[in-house]
Amino acid sequence: MFSFSFHKRVRYAETDKMGYLYYGHYAKYYEIGRVETLRHLGLSYKTMEDSQGIMLPVVSMESRYLAPAYYDDNIEIKTILKNLPNKMITFNHELVNEDGKVINKAEVKLFFVDMKTGKRTSCPVLLTENLSPFFE
Amino acid sequence: MFSFSFHKRVRYAETDKMGYLYYGHYAKYYEIGRVETLRHLGLSYKTMEDSQGIMLPVVSMESRYLAPAYYDDNIEIKTILKNLPNKMITFNHELVNEDGKVINKAEVKLFFVDMKTGKRTSCPVLLTENLSPFFE
Amino acid sequence: MFSFSFHKRVRYAETDKMGYLYYGHYAKYYEIGRVETLRHLGLSYKTMEDSQGIMLPVVSMESRYLAPAYYDDNIEIKTILKNLPNKMITFNHELVNEDGKVINKAEVKLFFVDMKTGKRTSCPVLLTENLSPFFE
Amino acid sequence: MFSFSFHKRVRYAETDKMGYLYYGHYAKYYEIGRVETLRHLGLSYKTMEDSQGIMLPVVSMESRYLAPAYYDDNIEIKTILKNLPNKMITFNHELVNEDGKVINKAEVKLFFVDMKTGKRTSCPVLLTENLSPFFE
Repeated sequence: MFSFSFHKRVRYAETDKMGYLYYGHYAKYYEIGRVETLRHLGLSYKTMEDSQGIMLPVVSMESRYLAPAYYDDNIEIKTILKNLPNKMITFNHELVNEDGKVINKAEVKLFFVDMKTGKRTSCPVLLTENLSPFFE
Repeated sequence: MFSFSFHKRVRYAETDKMGYLYYGHYAKYYEIGRVETLRHLGLSYKTMEDSQGIMLPVVSMESRYLAPAYYDDNIEIKTILKNLPNKMITFNHELVNEDGKVINKAEVKLFFVDMKTGKRTSCPVLLTENLSPFFE
Repeated sequence: MFSFSFHKRVRYAETDKMGYLYYGHYAKYYEIGRVETLRHLGLSYKTMEDSQGIMLPVVSMESRYLAPAYYDDNIEIKTILKNLPNKMITFNHELVNEDGKVINKAEVKLFFVDMKTGKRTSCPVLLTENLSPFFE
Repeated sequence: MFSFSFHKRVRYAETDKMGYLYYGHYAKYYEIGRVETLRHLGLSYKTMEDSQGIMLPVVSMESRYLAPAYYDDNIEIKTILKNLPNKMITFNHELVNEDGKVINKAEVKLFFVDMKTGKRTSCPVLLTENLSPFFE
């Protein structure tokens, strides 16, 4: 198992008239969580697209909203990899507010697509290599 | 069972560098689907908040991305109510592109909150009344 | 001079904790205004990119916020072309609420870029042709 | 004159099918710029709303797009106050990419509104006090 945390503040742009972080913006928090997790592992998602020609479209997302997030809250985005990726990569997320309360749990599955052929491909070797020490 | 369709075009603002409708924007499509479904049933979500003091925060969302949506696609947002709401209301959605292909399926659960007390309440009578003919 | 109106509702996703349409979302309304104006003139912005290889990045935007827009308001996006485009195209916009009040005025300038060379190009002939009857 | 810099990465959610940071998202960068500038000055915009009952709606925005921002660029948001605020506060912004190139210049004007009366009010004393040393 591998876990990494990154923080992001709730911006005015992201609130709604309830005063909450709008439920549709959480997907962006998960995106930030997984990209910063990859960066922490020495991998750039940008490079994966630009140099390796591999992109990761989202297959499915499940999100449970346990409590609201409010304007200016500095949210911890906890990203968890429970298994080594193979044909898919599954990111689990927990969003934690400044009081330490878990306000949201999510699971996002993505697969690997060769940008030239538009077809599915397997997980880039570099990603498997950098992750495997955590799964031994 | 009750079903209603509403159309929305994919805007440039909603595309990403893959050329797809960004996965985080689908939640807005579901919002539009459920609000326009309520309006079609003679109910205004705005009035529910402003006059009845009831708001509907989202409890959970599940989304499966079956195929991409592209810029300028005129997407059919099919909203399905499989059961009468009680303490929760569950909206099912199917997004259909101009070729008739289902590109996304989702389930969004919301509950009813009394805006004064901040506590859960039951489904407004007017909503149950307007929906019940479809579930007899 | 040429003018065209298109309507768009303010969605929950677009409100902020003030209860207003967030100031950053107006740019999307202008986008919708200009694309639907082009469509009304028999031109598809999508086709312009896909078939003619011309894209229109924004050079400048000026926006004056005269009054707020609120949730569920059905906003009229008035798009005005005061001059025939040459090296640039200038769209003027007025957003009008359901009471007939002008709530926002904007001017957006875009130029024409050849997507292959990445360099500036002149206005597509088809656009000049379809617009010129209105400027005689 | 007072100036402060804050960094923000361009996220996938913010790109468009041109591969650029969508022109409508810059407003959010300005929001982040001014809020983090206030925080650096010892002022919380959240507290201004919650405790002092003062909110700052935007009156006008002018933006010039000089060059595109791309996915994953770590953008420096330079926020400049040229004058002490009185009835209005004017923020100037320069967005600078990782090569040191200024890609966007903007000016955003906001006024101070008493949230109870909905009417204009003057600049909070605390803000004037914290800023005045920079304008002597």
